[in-house]
Amino acid sequence: MAAVGIIGAGTWGTALAVLLNNNGQDVTIWSAFDTEIQEMSRTRRHKNLPEVVLPDQIQMTADLRTAMAEKDMLIMAVPSVYVRSTAAKMKEYLRYGQIVVDVAKGIEEQSLMTMSQVIEEELPLAEVAVLSGPSHAEEVSRGLPTTCVAAAHRKKTAEFMQSVFMSPVFRIYTSPDMLGVEIGAALKNVIALAAGTADGLGCGDNTKAALITRGIAEIARLGIAMGGKQQTFYGLSGIGDLIVTCASMHSRNRRAGILIGKGYTMDEAMKEVQMVVEGVYSAKAGLLLAQKYGCDMPIVSQVNQVLFDGKSPKEALADLMMRDPRIESSDLPWEG
Amino acid sequence: MAAVGIIGAGTWGTALAVLLNNNGQDVTIWSAFDTEIQEMSRTRRHKNLPEVVLPDQIQMTADLRTAMAEKDMLIMAVPSVYVRSTAAKMKEYLRYGQIVVDVAKGIEEQSLMTMSQVIEEELPLAEVAVLSGPSHAEEVSRGLPTTCVAAAHRKKTAEFMQSVFMSPVFRIYTSPDMLGVEIGAALKNVIALAAGTADGLGCGDNTKAALITRGIAEIARLGIAMGGKQQTFYGLSGIGDLIVTCASMHSRNRRAGILIGKGYTMDEAMKEVQMVVEGVYSAKAGLLLAQKYGCDMPIVSQVNQVLFDGKSPKEALADLMMRDPRIESSDLPWEG
Repeated sequence: MAAVGIIGAGTWGTALAVLLNNNGQDVTIWSAFDTEIQEMSRTRRHKNLPEVVLPDQIQMTADLRTAMAEKDMLIMAVPSVYVRSTAAKMKEYLRYGQIVVDVAKGIEEQSLMTMSQVIEEELPLAEVAVLSGPSHAEEVSRGLPTTCVAAAHRKKTAEFMQSVFMSPVFRIYTSPDMLGVEIGAALKNVIALAAGTADGLGCGDNTKAALITRGIAEIARLGIAMGGKQQTFYGLSGIGDLIVTCASMHSRNRRAGILIGKGYTMDEAMKEVQMVVEGVYSAKAGLLLAQKYGCDMPIVSQVNQVLFDGKSPKEALADLMMRDPRIESSDLPWEG
Repeated sequence: MAAVGIIGAGTWGTALAVLLNNNGQDVTIWSAFDTEIQEMSRTRRHKNLPEVVLPDQIQMTADLRTAMAEKDMLIMAVPSVYVRSTAAKMKEYLRYGQIVVDVAKGIEEQSLMTMSQVIEEELPLAEVAVLSGPSHAEEVSRGLPTTCVAAAHRKKTAEFMQSVFMSPVFRIYTSPDMLGVEIGAALKNVIALAAGTADGLGCGDNTKAALITRGIAEIARLGIAMGGKQQTFYGLSGIGDLIVTCASMHSRNRRAGILIGKGYTMDEAMKEVQMVVEGVYSAKAGLLLAQKYGCDMPIVSQVNQVLFDGKSPKEALADLMMRDPRIESSDLPWEG
């Protein structure tokens, strides 16, 4: 039995708590908000996962020291904008070599760092790793079959994560490519915004499949320039997560895109969806990274023009369709 | 203006006729069935594309010589089981070097040859090429934005195809990897059956994204062993077409899978869907190819067990989830 502290009581942290508890692990959930912990302790439910009862064995606390003490693994499950400040608070209680598994996805706006890089900067003594893949929290909490990638610097860490998380409904593959996993996860929401926008314009499945396929191609181009591996972008944390995000109405990014395709401005769409639309921030980060690494990212570029320069979605799509004719993979040779 | 003969008057041949006519090409559709040609000439509609009026400029004939004479390009658009017999009939009228673009997808059951290999065997004087990608005929006929790959042995042929097909709603990428394009297209239906089966079992988007992602990984493993290129499987004709096929109710394979997931036998599902379910044949071909090339194809193997050995879909899914824990990409090295 592994002792696991889950730092953050959102839907993903809570779904992972239920999964790990079912796997026989000793689970403690922490939230910065005392009222949230009291509410969850009393009702044994999470307000956004109404179908799921939280088993009695899952402990809940608003005390960070308690959440971290004697834990084999900590899971960083706060929204990406709170990762740095939460990691800073954790420093005081962290043991040398304690595993911190990041499950928040994003690029820090000022530094253009990934979440694991942010955590490593704040917690240099931690063994930081990443869990990512096509995994809507709501489906995981209901026990629907799901696959994820456990990425770590060391094989031993990744295989320990595999042994802790894996179950008949949660299959884990290991990977040494943390950076590739994180870049795919952070930029998928930009493509989800584009796919939603195409839906809002009345396009079909052909258009969406094209945006997903060419979308991961440009994310891979950037990610490889940054040091990620091609295979990762075509794995569960890359194309797999992108497929789920673009297909599902669970995705706020896709829903915001649909509204933008129907003529809403970015602000109107964000207001209507009433939640943080991370793709709007990662669109900016993607554009800055593309410039920094000299990569061609036509979809990310058009999304930025629609979001921030008032370009019409219809015109952006037309510009993507009528770019110069080209070869699909520029590194494949012709015969003769 | 290019003169194009379309051999086969199904929905895909007809959708391509409308597209090419709108591009200003001189288009002739051929069908082996005189009554079908008479009906389409009279109504200017295809019975399975009821929303689309066929422009007057499109010519229709049941005479193969007329369909092929003086054409810059012929498009092979008959069902895959009729490709060999149709090519054999075309031999008499074919000019040396005439381009034959195959758009039928499949593996010939006895020979395990791709469609372009079949055509090249029957028509050794032809310049055979392939067009493939995420392209539901019904959406293309309505002018919804679509992308495809034009694959040929020679760059010149692929670029000629690109110039003929490309339009503001139909973007074409070229590729030298005909084999890779065809293997992806032929085996996608096996994965679509598996994805449909998961839907029928009540699984969610996470499960489907996992089947698509791991599905293309095993198709790529086989395809590369056969001589195809990795990049192709992660392009429009590989993962792109697979996404469309697994997501859409247009796909008979997915619909048949849903029924099988709900407890229908293969025969009952085929009867209910009332159309040829190509995945059933390509499942067999996939298994034979996996054996021939010594490739591990766990999803294809489980689909075969469900279709032909009476294994329950639930058990097949459980077996996929609980295979030995492993690394996602076996060729990525660990640090240290």
